[in-house]
Amino acid sequence: MTNLQQRWEELADIKDELATRDWFMGTSGNLAIKVSESPLQFLVTASGKDKRKRTSEDFLLVDASGQAVEETHLKPSAETLLHVEIYNKTKAGCSLHVHTVENNVVSELYGDQGEITFKGQEIIKAFDKWEEDATLTIPIIYNHAHIPTLAREFSEHVQEDTGVVLIRNHGITVWGRTPFEAKKLLEAAEFLFRYQLRLMEFTK
Amino acid sequence: MTNLQQRWEELADIKDELATRDWFMGTSGNLAIKVSESPLQFLVTASGKDKRKRTSEDFLLVDASGQAVEETHLKPSAETLLHVEIYNKTKAGCSLHVHTVENNVVSELYGDQGEITFKGQEIIKAFDKWEEDATLTIPIIYNHAHIPTLAREFSEHVQEDTGVVLIRNHGITVWGRTPFEAKKLLEAAEFLFRYQLRLMEFTK
Amino acid sequence: MTNLQQRWEELADIKDELATRDWFMGTSGNLAIKVSESPLQFLVTASGKDKRKRTSEDFLLVDASGQAVEETHLKPSAETLLHVEIYNKTKAGCSLHVHTVENNVVSELYGDQGEITFKGQEIIKAFDKWEEDATLTIPIIYNHAHIPTLAREFSEHVQEDTGVVLIRNHGITVWGRTPFEAKKLLEAAEFLFRYQLRLMEFTK
Amino acid sequence: MTNLQQRWEELADIKDELATRDWFMGTSGNLAIKVSESPLQFLVTASGKDKRKRTSEDFLLVDASGQAVEETHLKPSAETLLHVEIYNKTKAGCSLHVHTVENNVVSELYGDQGEITFKGQEIIKAFDKWEEDATLTIPIIYNHAHIPTLAREFSEHVQEDTGVVLIRNHGITVWGRTPFEAKKLLEAAEFLFRYQLRLMEFTK
Repeated sequence: MTNLQQRWEELADIKDELATRDWFMGTSGNLAIKVSESPLQFLVTASGKDKRKRTSEDFLLVDASGQAVEETHLKPSAETLLHVEIYNKTKAGCSLHVHTVENNVVSELYGDQGEITFKGQEIIKAFDKWEEDATLTIPIIYNHAHIPTLAREFSEHVQEDTGVVLIRNHGITVWGRTPFEAKKLLEAAEFLFRYQLRLMEFTK
Repeated sequence: MTNLQQRWEELADIKDELATRDWFMGTSGNLAIKVSESPLQFLVTASGKDKRKRTSEDFLLVDASGQAVEETHLKPSAETLLHVEIYNKTKAGCSLHVHTVENNVVSELYGDQGEITFKGQEIIKAFDKWEEDATLTIPIIYNHAHIPTLAREFSEHVQEDTGVVLIRNHGITVWGRTPFEAKKLLEAAEFLFRYQLRLMEFTK
Repeated sequence: MTNLQQRWEELADIKDELATRDWFMGTSGNLAIKVSESPLQFLVTASGKDKRKRTSEDFLLVDASGQAVEETHLKPSAETLLHVEIYNKTKAGCSLHVHTVENNVVSELYGDQGEITFKGQEIIKAFDKWEEDATLTIPIIYNHAHIPTLAREFSEHVQEDTGVVLIRNHGITVWGRTPFEAKKLLEAAEFLFRYQLRLMEFTK
Repeated sequence: MTNLQQRWEELADIKDELATRDWFMGTSGNLAIKVSESPLQFLVTASGKDKRKRTSEDFLLVDASGQAVEETHLKPSAETLLHVEIYNKTKAGCSLHVHTVENNVVSELYGDQGEITFKGQEIIKAFDKWEEDATLTIPIIYNHAHIPTLAREFSEHVQEDTGVVLIRNHGITVWGRTPFEAKKLLEAAEFLFRYQLRLMEFTK
């Protein structure tokens, strides 16, 4: 199996797993995995596909500007530019963008503040925070309809090899050095969002 | 595989998928797929079947008035007349009617207003709304027990090749040019209903 | 396949299906299916089994008083006496008892009233209520720890071949002429409980 | 199959089952099963693994102090010391630690009280409480980041062969004489947490 095939299978496996949680409602969401460093190339989900199915047209290979590397009838996901920022600025190997009801509601409730902070929750250790009073702050950015503008604002929060950003009413984007790490951060963030909302029902 | 068989398999696949989400509680829900234009014929779910099972009696072929095309002991779903309106008035290829707790609750909470409007939610792009401040309005009609009356009121909202209507305490009906489009609209609408209810818990 | 084997497989199928919904938390719940009329014999779940697994010891055959028909090391479910009431008093063919969070919460919230009534909900047609303003009333009885006492109070509500009773903080029991009918009533009731709780969050 | 292999398979089966409920979000959670009494040895989950996958590196054998019995590149779960307390002090055969949104929220809402008590709920019979007014009290301890300190406080509540402890914002730990019993207690506790939160939404 070539490196490209291996990456393809890894990304397809993650897609399957997130699909079983129904995290791609209404064909929302897009995923990417880095294939090579130089030149920078990564696989990204093709636009308008049913992410609950596994087919040979689920992904396409794009370059550092998000353009298809080879002639193809497939269109890269509309938000490929966000993945471009991640791979150009960090050593991330995988990036995931999904919509859940909880990440959308949290992004709306905390949108005016521009961020949400978690503290005293064991699960934030997934973000490599180990002190007893560690805090985790997730930025929430405005959902510009113009994707290059959105990518520019998004880019301000892309500084490390792992990260997580909420776009208001537009889901979460996480990235990690490996697919496994990206998935771990995504799960931990979603757990925290659910926790926060459930707790707020009793403390608001 | 004949055209009829292909349509059958497509509809059965959608049924399986919606069944895994438990969207047919208490044998509720009905589905249809167009098989031919002229004469107009479509497959519709047979009445009183367990939609979690896949059998050779799940659907039957009906004509433009909703009558079985061939002699059969199967009864078309009681609400076949609603699907009749869709295929007679539009170029839709597939129509789906399901009950979820969320679509029922939304239909009750917004029933007196006769509609619910969503704005500023990325996921409404599933409905081909791309502007930054796009809005999506879903009509909510009264649940007449007399099906021909219900179909008449329903018909007023059947004007385009894609669409979505809530019936008060009686689920959602969506239609699209293809089964994939109908499913996309259904998922997007259900996502919006869940979002709306979850958000309202904190903002009411 | 003998009649006994057929009934066994039918009940095992229902058990599998309810298990996928996680309706047997903490080994709760019990199920029964009638095997013969005279003498009255029915299969009932053996006590203390993991209902997510399918084994040859999941059920045992009991008589009209709930005693094992043959020598066996299996113990009939502690609540077999409730199923005894159903098969002795009606023509039911299957009876299901499950705990869900929603049926427990509804039974507690409406327990002092002794019943809960649903109206204007399409899904109550599952209970053969077809008029536009049909109502469905489900009795809620006290959870006597002494099973014969519980069975006696339960018995007062066992009058027709289909039925549904809530026991306060002790789940729901439904029965129907066929396994399919019992399952349909169970699903419809659970849908109504979820609907009611979700709606009450906004209208209380 | 050796005793070790049998225990391995039993623990892997439980891991699979809990994974289908998504109870290991963000690689959280850890599980253990006793393999021998003297010397005391038990299998415990290896650190940093994807618990949704089944591999030959999911568990490793440790001794009465939680150290790996054989040379290995695998690291026992960071919280192995809690399992050590259980197997050293009781006749438990299996112990499970998982994070759910509900157990975390309950642990936070009742954390200042240091415990939560359930009463009049049928499902507490899973804890061998059979009287009509039986109560079940689950202690909630402080989440010390220093694991030996956490293990010491945890140990105060490890007195019987079955048990359940909440760690504030850090999930639940249950143990039982058999894997089946541990799983039963876990499910019953989670059911009670969900019930409690759902009920409190209407009674707070």
